[in-house]
Amino acid sequence: MPTYASTDLATYRYLVPHAELRRRVAALQARLAAADIDLALVQTTSDVLYVAGCVLDGWVLVPAGGEPRILARRGADRFEAETCWDVRRAVSNTELVAELEGLGVSRGRIAMALDVVPAADYLKLARALPDAELLDLTHHIRSVRSVKSAWELEHHRAAAEQVKDAMRTVAYQVVPGHTELDAQRLAEGCLRASGHQGPMRMRRFGGEMFFGQVCAAANSALPAALDAPLGGSGLYPSVGKGASLTELRAGDLLVLDLMGCHNGYLSDCTRVVAVGGIDTIPDDLLAAQAWCVGALETIAAAARPGVVPSALYALALELAADAGHAERFMGIAPDQARFVGHGIGLEVDEYPFLARGFDEPLVPGMVFALEPKLVFERRAAVGIEDAFVVTADGVKPLPALPRDVLDLA
Amino acid sequence: MPTYASTDLATYRYLVPHAELRRRVAALQARLAAADIDLALVQTTSDVLYVAGCVLDGWVLVPAGGEPRILARRGADRFEAETCWDVRRAVSNTELVAELEGLGVSRGRIAMALDVVPAADYLKLARALPDAELLDLTHHIRSVRSVKSAWELEHHRAAAEQVKDAMRTVAYQVVPGHTELDAQRLAEGCLRASGHQGPMRMRRFGGEMFFGQVCAAANSALPAALDAPLGGSGLYPSVGKGASLTELRAGDLLVLDLMGCHNGYLSDCTRVVAVGGIDTIPDDLLAAQAWCVGALETIAAAARPGVVPSALYALALELAADAGHAERFMGIAPDQARFVGHGIGLEVDEYPFLARGFDEPLVPGMVFALEPKLVFERRAAVGIEDAFVVTADGVKPLPALPRDVLDLA
Repeated sequence: MPTYASTDLATYRYLVPHAELRRRVAALQARLAAADIDLALVQTTSDVLYVAGCVLDGWVLVPAGGEPRILARRGADRFEAETCWDVRRAVSNTELVAELEGLGVSRGRIAMALDVVPAADYLKLARALPDAELLDLTHHIRSVRSVKSAWELEHHRAAAEQVKDAMRTVAYQVVPGHTELDAQRLAEGCLRASGHQGPMRMRRFGGEMFFGQVCAAANSALPAALDAPLGGSGLYPSVGKGASLTELRAGDLLVLDLMGCHNGYLSDCTRVVAVGGIDTIPDDLLAAQAWCVGALETIAAAARPGVVPSALYALALELAADAGHAERFMGIAPDQARFVGHGIGLEVDEYPFLARGFDEPLVPGMVFALEPKLVFERRAAVGIEDAFVVTADGVKPLPALPRDVLDLA
Repeated sequence: MPTYASTDLATYRYLVPHAELRRRVAALQARLAAADIDLALVQTTSDVLYVAGCVLDGWVLVPAGGEPRILARRGADRFEAETCWDVRRAVSNTELVAELEGLGVSRGRIAMALDVVPAADYLKLARALPDAELLDLTHHIRSVRSVKSAWELEHHRAAAEQVKDAMRTVAYQVVPGHTELDAQRLAEGCLRASGHQGPMRMRRFGGEMFFGQVCAAANSALPAALDAPLGGSGLYPSVGKGASLTELRAGDLLVLDLMGCHNGYLSDCTRVVAVGGIDTIPDDLLAAQAWCVGALETIAAAARPGVVPSALYALALELAADAGHAERFMGIAPDQARFVGHGIGLEVDEYPFLARGFDEPLVPGMVFALEPKLVFERRAAVGIEDAFVVTADGVKPLPALPRDVLDLA
């Protein structure tokens, strides 16, 4: 078997620093200890990447105290070069159980991310460890991951720069007669050329992301499966959202909701393009678009450490109701998305959610996308989205184009 | 609320025919009845797409007899235009439970795909329906899905054509000095321009696919998390497989393992490119490549209805051992992938697996990718892959380029 050094990997420049991994695990361990959990069994791609610094098929065992240990189904030698934790080869559930027994937690309290781990895996472990108590890790790991380090913020910023480039190019190059898909593909190519990693991650079961969504006019107002304000028919029923082969016409508003992704970290930004020039856009849509920008700025101004996300959502609902937009805010009632923003990180649906029930206050280092949007039934959608970093005295946007309507004319 | 007709959707040309949906559900119901299952609760994207013809957030309730019923968290009116089944709006687990009670199965045998449904969803349902027996749907739905209709095969063929175009373009345009990522991005752009849907689906927990894998020389020999013969470092540790920024040099073999995707249906094909011309490639690698092509053709010639997939895998192992390739067949031992082929359909990892333990015979309509590959430690990988449709008297490949090494010179 070959053994690898970090510098054998083409990606060695981007490896997560060991100090960063240690800090993350310490933060998780503090939560485990507080919840009287003996061990976190981490096995979801984004969670594994967070605590181990690599994408592996296997498990990361994080005890409440002491060093984590990694069990990898394959490539153990390679992953040893990517992480600072001990890596062993283990293929089966039996080997996992033996390891848990060796760590003395087979009668203890073991937490797994039950929101994503398949039922079959859970049941297999429950059967093999009848005296263990299997608990939910979800809230703990999501809470730890929601507060970003300086190192993580660098990658978020790089992701945001990718989107700036792509939006500028789409705004310059797309003309009436192009399809939504032409605009989407152009954006995809630009994003990849700027270092976008390709695959994007969403935590919610069945959630799929593919560079974001590009759609216009009536197609943007069509509801889709995705829990988001805008929809779209997609290229095929098998996709069911976003860009279609519908041609763009003068007078259409083209919504660019694009996601950058740099070394795992996402950005999420929305701008609208006035296809055929701003003069062709109906006044009521331009007014609605301006309202979205104002709402975003009002909500962002109210956000700071100590404020609870649910209060920002309540503020958004109040602004929408005052402006007569209640029935079209974040989609067409009753299918509306029930949030006005969401945390981003290694996944697009992270803590904090700016939604009802999210009452743990913002803290510095959180990153969230704020996206007030309005949908006009069978006609059009408007909106804006920027991602913000929570700082000591407020929030600061990630790099983005000005919030004006992009004018192709 | 708007109501939609099929022709309101930009994708109406691609809707799954109602007769096709009825045939699929009847095939699933026959299996449910045979297994004494009262109801299949379908909620995984690919399974939902298969039985309902659309991608929705919710559940498809398929009773052992009678019409399925769909519960959609949003967009019920839109999905009514995409499916032939009754669609209702339902948001919560409580509404799902009420529906199951209404169908009289709350004390019955209910099957869910436990290999993918999150543990939390399973536990919630188990708590709400203490008298129901919750069973595993996985094997039943995967078995039904493994046999493709003429309509499905059309989409498979269209997906295969996408890959032919992309491979030809990469072979013409990539030159020494380009990076692996340049080749990968070129392939992605071609695939999308030919109608590739973008997102690709994999069933295995944590499995991620992004147009396939493009890597060369030592990078292709680096193991990765993916349960596949080839690896690659990827662009970042957050990706962990496939193309990197490593430059291609004369003498490298560039492996193009590309996936088409048309209306959900995948294709999977591998060819190798001799970067710098075939004369620059070491003889032992060319001989190994020729061995892979021979192995593929021998195995394909042995495949026909009635043959068990495990026998084809045994044949592959025997061929590899006879040629002295045992330790490098399908990866470097002991991390080798334990298969020589896999079914494809709406997911890249479908039944039948050409692997140990898969002893249900091939039947006409099955589609599988056959991919004998060899990995030379720290140096290179070679291999070939074509997808085949099982017919009455053998197997027939999906459209693909000739199996020769593609020569850039």
